[in-house]
Amino acid sequence: MSLVVQKYGGSSLADADRIRHVARRIAAERATGSSLVVVVSAMGDTTDHLIELAGQITRDPDPREMDRLLATGEYQSCALVTMALHTLGTAAVSLTGAQAGIRTDTAHGRARIANVDPARILRELEAGNVVIVAGFQGSTADSHSAGEITTLGRGGSDTTAVALAARLGAERCEIFTDVEGIFTADPRVVPEARLLPVIGYEEMLELAHQGAQVMQTRAVELGWVNDVEIAVRSTFSDHPGTRIKEDPDVEQRNKVRGLATDRNVAKLTLVAVPDRPGIARGVFAPLADAGINVDMIVQNVGHAGATDLSFTVPRSDLVRARRLLEPIVTEMGARELTVDDSVAKVSIVGAGVQNAPGYAARMFGTLADEGINIEMISTSEIRITCMIGEAHLEKAARALHRAFELERPEAGVPAQAH
Amino acid sequence: MSLVVQKYGGSSLADADRIRHVARRIAAERATGSSLVVVVSAMGDTTDHLIELAGQITRDPDPREMDRLLATGEYQSCALVTMALHTLGTAAVSLTGAQAGIRTDTAHGRARIANVDPARILRELEAGNVVIVAGFQGSTADSHSAGEITTLGRGGSDTTAVALAARLGAERCEIFTDVEGIFTADPRVVPEARLLPVIGYEEMLELAHQGAQVMQTRAVELGWVNDVEIAVRSTFSDHPGTRIKEDPDVEQRNKVRGLATDRNVAKLTLVAVPDRPGIARGVFAPLADAGINVDMIVQNVGHAGATDLSFTVPRSDLVRARRLLEPIVTEMGARELTVDDSVAKVSIVGAGVQNAPGYAARMFGTLADEGINIEMISTSEIRITCMIGEAHLEKAARALHRAFELERPEAGVPAQAH
Repeated sequence: MSLVVQKYGGSSLADADRIRHVARRIAAERATGSSLVVVVSAMGDTTDHLIELAGQITRDPDPREMDRLLATGEYQSCALVTMALHTLGTAAVSLTGAQAGIRTDTAHGRARIANVDPARILRELEAGNVVIVAGFQGSTADSHSAGEITTLGRGGSDTTAVALAARLGAERCEIFTDVEGIFTADPRVVPEARLLPVIGYEEMLELAHQGAQVMQTRAVELGWVNDVEIAVRSTFSDHPGTRIKEDPDVEQRNKVRGLATDRNVAKLTLVAVPDRPGIARGVFAPLADAGINVDMIVQNVGHAGATDLSFTVPRSDLVRARRLLEPIVTEMGARELTVDDSVAKVSIVGAGVQNAPGYAARMFGTLADEGINIEMISTSEIRITCMIGEAHLEKAARALHRAFELERPEAGVPAQAH
Repeated sequence: MSLVVQKYGGSSLADADRIRHVARRIAAERATGSSLVVVVSAMGDTTDHLIELAGQITRDPDPREMDRLLATGEYQSCALVTMALHTLGTAAVSLTGAQAGIRTDTAHGRARIANVDPARILRELEAGNVVIVAGFQGSTADSHSAGEITTLGRGGSDTTAVALAARLGAERCEIFTDVEGIFTADPRVVPEARLLPVIGYEEMLELAHQGAQVMQTRAVELGWVNDVEIAVRSTFSDHPGTRIKEDPDVEQRNKVRGLATDRNVAKLTLVAVPDRPGIARGVFAPLADAGINVDMIVQNVGHAGATDLSFTVPRSDLVRARRLLEPIVTEMGARELTVDDSVAKVSIVGAGVQNAPGYAARMFGTLADEGINIEMISTSEIRITCMIGEAHLEKAARALHRAFELERPEAGVPAQAH
């Protein structure tokens, strides 16, 4: 049996017309004879609306109750997509994340999938149904009365889709969204950005980590670990999009594959903190416990027994991070905690970037030529990230896109390699 | 332990302000030391909005998918009320109908509660939590993967509340709504209608059946069978409202307690249907299978082997009823099926009405004096209902309210008997 997993994002399901359009796509795929599992996000801005409603009630919602609230968006869309399929004469059934066998840990709001029990899905496929699964969610145990609903964090429906594709041994996993695929840069920032027909898992992971919001990073990780080839495609066209896969051609290509830009970043600095063991743990452990991701970290050379410690957090977590850190700062005898939320990150990503020193030099040189000051630098095996003033982000991205000739198709990779 | 069950309707939870208001009421009750189980409906017109959304997708939604969709409204409100309680420092936890142990039959859209497993609620009460339960819904079995979500029909949250009060042996069951209690007539129709401090179960049941929309009839039945005293009160005042209970004073009072009016009615007539056995079953069995309630039935005296059969259905079910009956009419050789949707019902209700023939005479005489034609009559032990033209409904209700002196408080029943 040839099994396909598809996922449709919220903008693809924003109203009844779009839901009907998605249903027609699903029915057409089903008509080719594939068995189909379809993961859906909440309609349009439903999740944002629910977050706003909770915000009108409390600044600090209980994570369990928040998950109960947010999980309802996907319940609604999966019931509606199923109804739309019925009008087309396509047998279909909706399942909640819990019913679809998505078992998670207990970290409400950012739960990780522990395992997938496919029994119910397999039974429904066997019965000839297209199975519509509520994305973004799971439950901590099998039973209604013992299990708690959890959500997987923003973009979690991608993770649901890839986890199901892995567990079910799907032939294809298609992520349908409102863009045509993965681009060399965000086309809203760099108009000459080019669609990538193929990208490696690791490259995609770095791009996603550094602000490319097309896919949740955990979904890419899960695809990589389980060797699930993922297609990122547009709901509104027939373009084949971008395939995310283990990339054998990686060494033969331009080593910079893409550019990521990220405004959701803020810089915190502990000024004149005593330079002794345990300081870093004292700062970063409470942030980790609160689920706040620290990205770049720079510790200046100390003098007179004190040092400056700078790091970045998502700008959306800044208020929480500050509230957590302010008492600690006093406790550990630092002079003060300063905050800068007018910064941004620009990254170049490509297999082997780190091993070819010329790339770093070209990146720094390009920014210098544009008169842009680099405030922090971080690197991985396949990525170099510079923190700069947010005002310079677009200029930096365009200059780097040109400097690395990202608008030029790579040799040896046909534009539509399918 | 003194246990109180409260239920708050959708208009009491229409926005964040009202949710906060409800939370303050709950917290105040909790502060008196009561253990509390609170059943909530969906916010404002959420359910209607979801029905409309489904209507944009299909005219004939799958009942299972419709239940999945509609159950989400109560998930949202119970999470939000719980968050609001947390801001007041009141420990609280939300449960879905399934988690609250509401087990139902499999009749999607109009499921009946089969039993209540109170284990989880008792555990949460034991832990000191106010338990907020999603009303209007249950599940067919205990397990997430095997159980299906069901809904209990419009007004089903009342039934959830009374079922929980019965199973938990609650001291009080309070239904909070946007009116101050049960009135002798709908105050929008009869301005001089008077609040009833007490009403018997049977009387309430007849009023609810005949169009008084304050409470779901099944909730009243369940209260009656289990001897649960139900208070119907306003969310927005401290008025004690109306107590629904076994009424020992029933024989000493004015025998007409209240008046019900109902515009949600349509009359169907099978003209010249052959007068032979099996006809009634042929007509009414398919309606019953479709969950359409037939209320008044009149069969005219037959002549020449044929008869006219008239009956009423809720006007909201008229399209479905007609679609079901049209093929049957031809099949059984009737001349035609006629439909009248400009009718309405007015009923007088009171223990012993039937045993005191003077009441019927006074009702028919009053309508005659107003020049109102009676099209059909039906009666029960404690009720007389007349079907009239909808245009005359208000005039009829006001005249009957005066004729039975319903604006006068009854002797021996203090206005606020608490």
